[in-house]
Amino acid sequence: MNIHGTPTRSIRPRSDRTGVEIIDQTRLPHALVLRTLTTLEEACEAIAVMRVRGAPLIGATAAYGLALALREEASDGCIDAACAALAATRPTAVNLRWALTRMRARLTPLPPRLRFDAAWAEAAAICDEDVAINQAIGRHGLALMRTLSPRRSGTLNLMTHCNAGWLATVDWGTALAPVYAAFAAGIPLHVWVSETRPRNQGAALTAWELASHGVPHTVICDNAAGHLMRQGQVDLVLVGADRVAANGDVANKIGTYLKALAAADNGVPFYVAVPGPTIDWRLADGEGIPIETRDGSEVTHIQGEAAHGEVMTVRLTPEASPAANPAFDVTPARLVTGLITERGVCAASPEGLRRLYPEHAHG
Amino acid sequence: MNIHGTPTRSIRPRSDRTGVEIIDQTRLPHALVLRTLTTLEEACEAIAVMRVRGAPLIGATAAYGLALALREEASDGCIDAACAALAATRPTAVNLRWALTRMRARLTPLPPRLRFDAAWAEAAAICDEDVAINQAIGRHGLALMRTLSPRRSGTLNLMTHCNAGWLATVDWGTALAPVYAAFAAGIPLHVWVSETRPRNQGAALTAWELASHGVPHTVICDNAAGHLMRQGQVDLVLVGADRVAANGDVANKIGTYLKALAAADNGVPFYVAVPGPTIDWRLADGEGIPIETRDGSEVTHIQGEAAHGEVMTVRLTPEASPAANPAFDVTPARLVTGLITERGVCAASPEGLRRLYPEHAHG
Repeated sequence: MNIHGTPTRSIRPRSDRTGVEIIDQTRLPHALVLRTLTTLEEACEAIAVMRVRGAPLIGATAAYGLALALREEASDGCIDAACAALAATRPTAVNLRWALTRMRARLTPLPPRLRFDAAWAEAAAICDEDVAINQAIGRHGLALMRTLSPRRSGTLNLMTHCNAGWLATVDWGTALAPVYAAFAAGIPLHVWVSETRPRNQGAALTAWELASHGVPHTVICDNAAGHLMRQGQVDLVLVGADRVAANGDVANKIGTYLKALAAADNGVPFYVAVPGPTIDWRLADGEGIPIETRDGSEVTHIQGEAAHGEVMTVRLTPEASPAANPAFDVTPARLVTGLITERGVCAASPEGLRRLYPEHAHG
Repeated sequence: MNIHGTPTRSIRPRSDRTGVEIIDQTRLPHALVLRTLTTLEEACEAIAVMRVRGAPLIGATAAYGLALALREEASDGCIDAACAALAATRPTAVNLRWALTRMRARLTPLPPRLRFDAAWAEAAAICDEDVAINQAIGRHGLALMRTLSPRRSGTLNLMTHCNAGWLATVDWGTALAPVYAAFAAGIPLHVWVSETRPRNQGAALTAWELASHGVPHTVICDNAAGHLMRQGQVDLVLVGADRVAANGDVANKIGTYLKALAAADNGVPFYVAVPGPTIDWRLADGEGIPIETRDGSEVTHIQGEAAHGEVMTVRLTPEASPAANPAFDVTPARLVTGLITERGVCAASPEGLRRLYPEHAHG
């Protein structure tokens, strides 16, 4: 998508294959800082501290991280160690494991001397496929949006949570792909951007993306979601996912479940944009999805830009008060109106998913 | 309640009747700053910028604000002007209007020379009655809590939203009165404190109150409420109210409705602590409750303490992104397990309320 008119991807391999350039997302929205990852360790660190985040982008970064690990030595042991290190960075998004499984399947049959070339090419293929998947989600989501009638005025009011935009993927985004497609198609729309505490990916990333691309939007506190739905100010809730179970249960950024409850209570369609690699076919339902617990300091402290322009971290809570920080929640399939995948829209159910992905219809 | 062992009220009249001392709640949790209001204008400012907040404390402060206005001149016109100025400070909490109506009824029959004395005494009576009301809510809430069995371990896990503690009232609090009563009774308990964006009254005030009094608690982001309830980690949700309609619909701090939805979806009891003066008998339901819209800067900016100890305001969002800031939402009575009033616990229904307040059973 565009940063003030310039098309950009969130991850870009160097042509000399010595590293990949990323946008350091911990610095947004206050500064656009590029950073080059040149080693496995740098890739692991970038994922763990969320310089890159979003399930699809985590998968793409892990693929390049593995490729970088094989530049010097490409033994089986090296592949094992690199995959283990990358897999340990974040537990919830299944794309990470999906990408590593795919890379490993491509690489281990090859002799070590061919592995780096193959890894670099496979990582690039994962990125290109992610873009194609998201463009397809955009098309299917756009078709869906054309069927909706705005409740108020002529503007379609969407609400999203966290960042499932191009910054969460290689390009286009998952939940925001239909928004960009609809914006390009000239459909009058406006996006309620839920700030998404504790890390404020909505206020910091989604707002920045939409502002940079020129899409009308308004930032709200997460708490305001239910009130706006009760007031008829939301026509569609559209979110991404970190992992979807085979029955359509959705793990996504903490707070998604509350929006799904409010949508159900107010008859607002609640859709989840899901690329195929985000579906965990091994899990019958969402109960088995590991929920990452992050450090309480993400709740007790927050980063922002002071009046004099310096980006600072400030403490919000009394020093004596502990904090808990579960990073994801599970929205049961019964609250999900539908899933928007690269193969079309389906019900959040075993049948709905298997119809679109018949190759997983076993078991 | 106690600040590290010292009993304290949130508003204290000077014995020479030249002013009332308040805790400047905009400075918590980082500093405990007392401030004396000596004029109507200072009282209005303190309410509008939320140096004092919480429905009962707003009512008490308005009563003293009117009394201070009558120190110099106590004409009918002066009463009218002072009431109009105070009523305009905040629209949602009905206690403000309730206190002014009560003060006016007490004062206007009197000759002007007797009005200041009467106003000061009436404001003090409102404060003392608030304390008695909250103690009664504490007793009834404690009895209710004794009937609940913890889902996990032997500790009763409560969740609250915003600050309905002693800082929101003259003392004891509404939703926290039962917590303090249970803590005094030795019941093992733990409170999930929802930070309550945008102004973080949970993280800043409730956490500070509970820490100062020694009550075990953990701060969470508002987004985490649903996840914790799904995980069986919440035995009771207990919140306050800014205005309750005659059918039991509850206006309270934005985000309350989302917690009520999550509680209903997980079978967690959801109770609202309601002093009589918070009930608006003129309103058949919550539709007519005015919802205050506050400045978007409360969403885009936040205050906290930097590492060097200075309290600073930092910007969270891109400069190009607008923000919306509805300050309250309405939780429909159907989602409320019960109301805890000073007269006992009742259903959130016209019948339930009228049974406890038969004097309002007309109409």
